[in-house]
Amino acid sequence: MRRHNRTTLLRLLHVTGPCTRATLAAELGLNRSTIKTLVDGLAEAGVVEEKVPRPGRGAGRPSLLVLPQPQAAVVLAVDLQVEHVAIALVGLGGQILGRNSWNLRGRMREADEVITHIIESAAMLAGDLGVQPTAVGVSVPGVVRRADGHVHEAPNLRWTDVALGERLNSVMRIPILVGNDAELGAVAEHLRGVARGASDAVYVSADVGVGGGVISDGSSLRGAAGYVGEIGHMVIRPDGRPCYCGNIGCWETEVGEAALCRALGLAEDTPRGAILVELRELAGDPQAAWERLSEFAEWLTLGLVNVVNLLGPQLLVLGDLLTVLPASVLERVGGEIRRRSLVSRAVGGTRLVSSVLGADVKLLGAAEVAFEQVLDTV
Amino acid sequence: MRRHNRTTLLRLLHVTGPCTRATLAAELGLNRSTIKTLVDGLAEAGVVEEKVPRPGRGAGRPSLLVLPQPQAAVVLAVDLQVEHVAIALVGLGGQILGRNSWNLRGRMREADEVITHIIESAAMLAGDLGVQPTAVGVSVPGVVRRADGHVHEAPNLRWTDVALGERLNSVMRIPILVGNDAELGAVAEHLRGVARGASDAVYVSADVGVGGGVISDGSSLRGAAGYVGEIGHMVIRPDGRPCYCGNIGCWETEVGEAALCRALGLAEDTPRGAILVELRELAGDPQAAWERLSEFAEWLTLGLVNVVNLLGPQLLVLGDLLTVLPASVLERVGGEIRRRSLVSRAVGGTRLVSSVLGADVKLLGAAEVAFEQVLDTV
Repeated sequence: MRRHNRTTLLRLLHVTGPCTRATLAAELGLNRSTIKTLVDGLAEAGVVEEKVPRPGRGAGRPSLLVLPQPQAAVVLAVDLQVEHVAIALVGLGGQILGRNSWNLRGRMREADEVITHIIESAAMLAGDLGVQPTAVGVSVPGVVRRADGHVHEAPNLRWTDVALGERLNSVMRIPILVGNDAELGAVAEHLRGVARGASDAVYVSADVGVGGGVISDGSSLRGAAGYVGEIGHMVIRPDGRPCYCGNIGCWETEVGEAALCRALGLAEDTPRGAILVELRELAGDPQAAWERLSEFAEWLTLGLVNVVNLLGPQLLVLGDLLTVLPASVLERVGGEIRRRSLVSRAVGGTRLVSSVLGADVKLLGAAEVAFEQVLDTV
Repeated sequence: MRRHNRTTLLRLLHVTGPCTRATLAAELGLNRSTIKTLVDGLAEAGVVEEKVPRPGRGAGRPSLLVLPQPQAAVVLAVDLQVEHVAIALVGLGGQILGRNSWNLRGRMREADEVITHIIESAAMLAGDLGVQPTAVGVSVPGVVRRADGHVHEAPNLRWTDVALGERLNSVMRIPILVGNDAELGAVAEHLRGVARGASDAVYVSADVGVGGGVISDGSSLRGAAGYVGEIGHMVIRPDGRPCYCGNIGCWETEVGEAALCRALGLAEDTPRGAILVELRELAGDPQAAWERLSEFAEWLTLGLVNVVNLLGPQLLVLGDLLTVLPASVLERVGGEIRRRSLVSRAVGGTRLVSSVLGADVKLLGAAEVAFEQVLDTV
């Protein structure tokens, strides 16, 4: 029981940051003396510290703040993308203590190379910072099985059946948690971003591929064998373009990076930087933005209407490239979803917002699934 | 604790039927003396009875069977359909003790009429059988809020914003649980039908409308405010037919009853009986069946591929009209889903099967959500 309360308190501090003892007592529904015992124990173990906050305007003695100590629990987060890999050591409280990243080209993208490089870089980073991670979270753009970190298919990396979890574990000897990138984006936005407090939310990201992560009744939604869904491979335009997955007209073919390039009149392999420049220019001219992007927006709307009609979220969070669409376009898309989705009308209007965690969103999500494994052992 | 064990034991008996004490002990992980105390208590209260089973071939003294007593807990189940209403009183163990039904035409379909008729018929049925229901489950073909039984929209009934739960409760004064019909179909198949034991399954039914119910990690999936998804309003053919919901090319417009009539070359308002006759004739001639139904089957496949790619179930259960499609057609659809869905390939091949609970499926689902409320008070 005490162990359980300790873990719950630690999770609260980890996710919400420094709190007073009174807040901890109120949030956890425990009495003050129980909180005192727990906090004293954690402080003695060096997991938290109590500090006088900077004085505010109010009168009276300020309450002590309980602060999680980042070094008390450290995890390794890995964000494996199609073009590059980022790794970070993340401390208790969610602070990034240090990071490293490298590009993937040619042979560097092969599973053997990637795995070796992750292990070596992580060891160097941990050595530099003088910390030791106790679990690893890995974000992969593909179809992964949560139970053992098996990558079934990561098409844009050209990976098939890679025992990623097992292979990292055989060297690092700590728990390895592998998740689909969009699922981890959803986790991060739910815990630390714009979907905080939402019980039902869907995070949709468009990069080279299009993926989605679903928070249902406060938790990640997964299907059989722990595989998460592949929203990007919802067929939405059966007379459209062939997709590598074998279908024709997957949503990914209409709202992925290549489709956005086509909508903007750019070559499909335009570098990311040039796409962003083009989008930022359009942002200043709503009329021009709509002329260029209305068809793209229509496919985005249709897919999101389907997502809402199937899953009934109160919140849709857009990630990656979708966050840089002109605000005027996103506003119209949001309005159309509310107008056209039966289920959105029932739940009182699904809101459409952009991810707020930026480029670190998947790294932070990967860190969280790793922390999930270690908080009860701190 | 004892109350909790009692409810768990009762739920097991309710769902799986008569068991020996040894089976109960094994299934619940309780020791034999605890089981004895619980069963003795339930027997004394008349909730279960212990009986010697008919002798089998084995030697030795047969174990006593613990049987749930149907009259010990009775709920009212209501299956509200577009053309008619069925009600039943269902006893502990899931046995239908008595039933009644009537057609809906013209004014009879208005909410006031339907509600009055349900209340009167239920009272008469209960009087005839000499039992008293302690909760009500209602299946509605529409968008309903589980929390208070509010019907937001039931388009084929032309109902909008009907406080169904509240209105039934104001007269009947017992808990009223209102669910979407496809959700309750999923519940019934999961507890008593072909999806028993499946952790992740989707039930899809096509009648006038097309709906779906999702079992995720063993429980019903719902979105914000308790609304379930509306799979039938997934847009799948954006250049297709207008749907009453405001979209164009909803799945319902391609695999609902009207679409099936078109595929068979029948008028869209062909009576159900005539559709069934046509389908049964086709069943004997797989080649003719495929010629007539291949386009219908393609839309069915596309929608099911999307459902699998979004939700990753291990099992798809077809209900209503879809169960009478020729077996040769369903076999091809199943094969195509496994071939074309990325996620089906990952989970090791989603199986496509037909509902086995027949016309009572939604009635049984409605009974179960009502039992869910009362088993701990028996």
